[in-house]
Amino acid sequence: MTKPKITALVLAAGKGTRMHSSRPKVLQTLLGEPMLRYVYDAIKPLFGQAAITVVGHGSGLVEQAFPEMAGQFVLQAQQLGTGHALQVAWDAVKADGTDYCLVINGDTPLITAEGLGRLAGQAGCCDLAFMTITPRDTAQFGRVVRDENQRISAIVEAKDYCMAVHGPVTGEVNAGIYLLRVSSVDTLLGQLRNENKSGEYYVTDLIGLAVASAMAVESVQCGDDISLMGINSPRELIRAESELRRRIVEAHIDRGVLIHNPETVIIGPRVAVEPGAEIFGHCEIYGASSVAAGSRLGSYTHITDSTFAPGCVVREFCHIEGAEVGPQAVVGPYARLRPGTVLHTGARVGNFVEMKKAVLGEGAKASHLSYLGDAEVGAGANIGAGTITCNYDGKNKFTTTIGPGAFIGSNTALVAPVTVGRDALVGAGSTITKDVPDEGGAIARGRQVNIHRRLKKS
Amino acid sequence: MTKPKITALVLAAGKGTRMHSSRPKVLQTLLGEPMLRYVYDAIKPLFGQAAITVVGHGSGLVEQAFPEMAGQFVLQAQQLGTGHALQVAWDAVKADGTDYCLVINGDTPLITAEGLGRLAGQAGCCDLAFMTITPRDTAQFGRVVRDENQRISAIVEAKDYCMAVHGPVTGEVNAGIYLLRVSSVDTLLGQLRNENKSGEYYVTDLIGLAVASAMAVESVQCGDDISLMGINSPRELIRAESELRRRIVEAHIDRGVLIHNPETVIIGPRVAVEPGAEIFGHCEIYGASSVAAGSRLGSYTHITDSTFAPGCVVREFCHIEGAEVGPQAVVGPYARLRPGTVLHTGARVGNFVEMKKAVLGEGAKASHLSYLGDAEVGAGANIGAGTITCNYDGKNKFTTTIGPGAFIGSNTALVAPVTVGRDALVGAGSTITKDVPDEGGAIARGRQVNIHRRLKKS
Amino acid sequence: MTKPKITALVLAAGKGTRMHSSRPKVLQTLLGEPMLRYVYDAIKPLFGQAAITVVGHGSGLVEQAFPEMAGQFVLQAQQLGTGHALQVAWDAVKADGTDYCLVINGDTPLITAEGLGRLAGQAGCCDLAFMTITPRDTAQFGRVVRDENQRISAIVEAKDYCMAVHGPVTGEVNAGIYLLRVSSVDTLLGQLRNENKSGEYYVTDLIGLAVASAMAVESVQCGDDISLMGINSPRELIRAESELRRRIVEAHIDRGVLIHNPETVIIGPRVAVEPGAEIFGHCEIYGASSVAAGSRLGSYTHITDSTFAPGCVVREFCHIEGAEVGPQAVVGPYARLRPGTVLHTGARVGNFVEMKKAVLGEGAKASHLSYLGDAEVGAGANIGAGTITCNYDGKNKFTTTIGPGAFIGSNTALVAPVTVGRDALVGAGSTITKDVPDEGGAIARGRQVNIHRRLKKS
Repeated sequence: MTKPKITALVLAAGKGTRMHSSRPKVLQTLLGEPMLRYVYDAIKPLFGQAAITVVGHGSGLVEQAFPEMAGQFVLQAQQLGTGHALQVAWDAVKADGTDYCLVINGDTPLITAEGLGRLAGQAGCCDLAFMTITPRDTAQFGRVVRDENQRISAIVEAKDYCMAVHGPVTGEVNAGIYLLRVSSVDTLLGQLRNENKSGEYYVTDLIGLAVASAMAVESVQCGDDISLMGINSPRELIRAESELRRRIVEAHIDRGVLIHNPETVIIGPRVAVEPGAEIFGHCEIYGASSVAAGSRLGSYTHITDSTFAPGCVVREFCHIEGAEVGPQAVVGPYARLRPGTVLHTGARVGNFVEMKKAVLGEGAKASHLSYLGDAEVGAGANIGAGTITCNYDGKNKFTTTIGPGAFIGSNTALVAPVTVGRDALVGAGSTITKDVPDEGGAIARGRQVNIHRRLKKS
Repeated sequence: MTKPKITALVLAAGKGTRMHSSRPKVLQTLLGEPMLRYVYDAIKPLFGQAAITVVGHGSGLVEQAFPEMAGQFVLQAQQLGTGHALQVAWDAVKADGTDYCLVINGDTPLITAEGLGRLAGQAGCCDLAFMTITPRDTAQFGRVVRDENQRISAIVEAKDYCMAVHGPVTGEVNAGIYLLRVSSVDTLLGQLRNENKSGEYYVTDLIGLAVASAMAVESVQCGDDISLMGINSPRELIRAESELRRRIVEAHIDRGVLIHNPETVIIGPRVAVEPGAEIFGHCEIYGASSVAAGSRLGSYTHITDSTFAPGCVVREFCHIEGAEVGPQAVVGPYARLRPGTVLHTGARVGNFVEMKKAVLGEGAKASHLSYLGDAEVGAGANIGAGTITCNYDGKNKFTTTIGPGAFIGSNTALVAPVTVGRDALVGAGSTITKDVPDEGGAIARGRQVNIHRRLKKS
Repeated sequence: MTKPKITALVLAAGKGTRMHSSRPKVLQTLLGEPMLRYVYDAIKPLFGQAAITVVGHGSGLVEQAFPEMAGQFVLQAQQLGTGHALQVAWDAVKADGTDYCLVINGDTPLITAEGLGRLAGQAGCCDLAFMTITPRDTAQFGRVVRDENQRISAIVEAKDYCMAVHGPVTGEVNAGIYLLRVSSVDTLLGQLRNENKSGEYYVTDLIGLAVASAMAVESVQCGDDISLMGINSPRELIRAESELRRRIVEAHIDRGVLIHNPETVIIGPRVAVEPGAEIFGHCEIYGASSVAAGSRLGSYTHITDSTFAPGCVVREFCHIEGAEVGPQAVVGPYARLRPGTVLHTGARVGNFVEMKKAVLGEGAKASHLSYLGDAEVGAGANIGAGTITCNYDGKNKFTTTIGPGAFIGSNTALVAPVTVGRDALVGAGSTITKDVPDEGGAIARGRQVNIHRRLKKS
């Protein structure tokens, strides 16, 4: 028997009214990543890119956020329920030539590949399977009703539940994740009705229809598994984010990362940290960052999409985004590294220094109160306190090039485009508008006049 | 029967020796607000401004901190006990023509209007009522003694308690909040004695006196209610502050505010946050601040008395005090906004920029390493890196005016009073002392001289 | 009977493979202090400097970190087990003419003098004593076996334990801290064998040997005491650090320090804080710092080796290292004080200001965007925004002296060595290279030229 082909179908059309936000719910972030990415990450090990996503509210924003899924979005223009979403996407599912469709909500960011794998394992042996849980608070879930042989007979909402008819309450409820045999459900989908309180079409109703058609209906019982939790409110998002944060930090510690004050450390799911790295909370590391063994990240740091080589040190109060920090480089305190910053081996960036699209060569230093934008600084150069690259004329950006070994005196403005030569010296307080020769120097400031009478007002 | 008139009497004369501080105890802060404010806030919904406060230690500081209560302070020059405080204030209470006096300690910041309302509800039906609690540790409280009919017979200190006389210990103790019928207590007040270990006059003794006079004495039983907790030590203040912090943050989350890492977020009691705002802990928001829906406050922020319009973004490491941040404005990271800062729609303030009594017009930008004090910047103007308004001559402050569309080159000093015209350009590195014409420009810097011999020491 | 002489022997040669770090394990830090310092601190009240330390992995680094222990290190070049370490150090122990040797691992930073004192109390009455614990997880410990009289008969590793031979498991295990009578152990030490799974010599085996020789072997039972916990992994270090942090913060609160948000406050073991100081978490205070009563440290601060006088205020986002902050001085927000900074009474350092080897006289101010390095600023002087002392010529550092009452205009560079006289005034935008006379002034900038045609690109 060949392995059945499965396509994932992600329902991501909802508005998430209780989030009180104009942002589509599945783009709300946990640890800096949109909720929907967690669902895709759980799907990928099982189904690769074979995932169709139903979008609706804010569909354009959702599609933009996941360009790698382009061509696999289906628009549900009106949101008439989960069953309707399935109907809207059904042609796309069938176009895949797939045997089964795994339906998952885009608002379940704690779901794991392992969990989905258990459900996917039912493929081949049933027409319809779904995951059940027994959470503490079952109020918002459909209750699972089983017959005397413990076979699924229906899912009944709490408000419609009648013990005389449905038997004693077991606490087992529907988690809202389904595996559907395409050929079987094809015959049921048109039978969904919206004659209920909400006037919506529900996927849930497929279970009753399947049982009525004597199809094979199975369940995967997951106990009180927080991983299946859906996000409908700020509180639920906060709870899920807290759980994710804890999971990730604990896993890094178990692998040998030394994390001081781990309760105050936030590490995103795409961050790689090598054993032997040392991190001091409070610290936040987001995006596609990587932290090498032997590097050290101080407290009060905020990092996104950056890489840290072995032996580098990030001191306190740094804000680092899209930067490469080289071996033995020292950053901060109070350094802001913006996208395009590259620090070569042993370079140093000090306090109140901003860098953007700027490179510091090996051992070069910019220690105090400077702005380096669109700049290339050679190895061993020293950038004095208060140096500013004037890279913008109000319309365009220009480049400043500083040669290896150059010394830029303090409080200097370098008006780009401009080049300061190798081993050249620029006097303090200068405004440099013309290139400075190699091994030479430049000065551009007013001459000092002393006054020998009282000037100070008092 | 008309509703009895009640005046609140707040006892706020104590030194709080265990706080080890020269500050009067009731001015110690929780979430940035003095302890006494919480008591006034609980009183106000019930009694409005009808509150007399007995001050003693540091009375001047207390009166200054609450100018809205002026004229309602009574000085207890010597602190001879709570009963003495009542005696000192009694004429002021009676001057109100009030029926009842509700006595509350100024060091109970967790008290709620609901709690006080339960006690106030006894007005009309008794001569004296008080709140009782059954805390875990009863050591520092007076024990409530009841007769066989469960009527109050006395309050007895632990050290004076005798089971043979007073019966088995019940755990019910006096919380120190009293409702007194003015006409009844008027006859008892002079009978208070200070023949006890501390040599002080105690309000507590009124209960025994009232029972002895066959007055109607009632109690309001409050169980183990942390809200009635008094603050006598740093540890107790910390515990109360932690409870207040949690209460406030949870309430905002329940109302639909998205607060990431809520354990690390501090929001003061006077801060308004709309559902749909997004806050990233660690974040501190104090004073009379307000945060609109759709605004976003980043981590490592410290905010006081500021307003945030819809769609604005505050990035990390910002310190904001007395500022108005307009719609879609972007602040930080590392921006310091001081009182009098106004950011109009879409204005941007970047890293290591300080503003004080300064306005940025619509879409204007000050992105790097600048100081804008006593400045008015027109719409769309661009303030280059390292710009400084020299607003102070050692004696007075002067204003800098920058026209709409102007471009200030980097590393420029603007010596106020000075005006840069509309759409004017100031060259980098200038020190501007005279007005710059509209649509024109100015430059004020030394000419560059290049040197073609080796200047750099090495 | 004279009190027996005891020498402590600290085993600190291990690599700590599970730390994944090139740093010797005993130099890993907790609350900013190397692990080994905690052990020395516990030893000192009992034995003073009479402690020999066996070093091995990274021995040079360990010796450098504790110069006060110079001459008392013994090198274990090859790490062949704890028994081997003892053999290597034995001559040094005996050279002390000591009666007993207390053997302790350098990786037990939670150990207290009280705990060690209990073991040391066995001196005189036994040949060998050791501490036993009953932790939850006993997997990594040697099990204590006792005979029918509850006397120690052996220590047996879990993998070698046989209930038929050794009796039912009691949960009592060896904590690895020993008191050895030198004359007794002298005869046993040569009998240690490395015929075990690890091929190492174990101190543990001394117990069996001592029992076999009918020596007096005692144990000190310590229950489930976390203080005896050894550190072998990041997780264990984190757990111990968390416990230490909590202990220290709680002790300060109990003594009357007001610590807001205490869960987010880190105070190192060598920091002194007076009752009546007020600290706002998040706050980190390391090294040999001291904080006086009536001083106030704001949130988001990072402090090392600094002193804070009464009434001083440190605002948010400050980074302070090796500084003296005088009475009523105000620092920050965003001030960086580096080693050698001294602030006299009432001095003020504002935002984005860095100081290094610099003194601010009484009431002097440097409020914005400045760098003061190698500088002496007189009382009452005012340093304008954007002032930079150019103290470095690429090779040497020079001093800037600013007289009392001087006023330095904004955006000024002071090229050291240079002196600005008493009550002198320096014009904004100047680059000062020559001394400025007392009560006079200086200006050094280009003249402003206005242009009346359109310069701005748009």
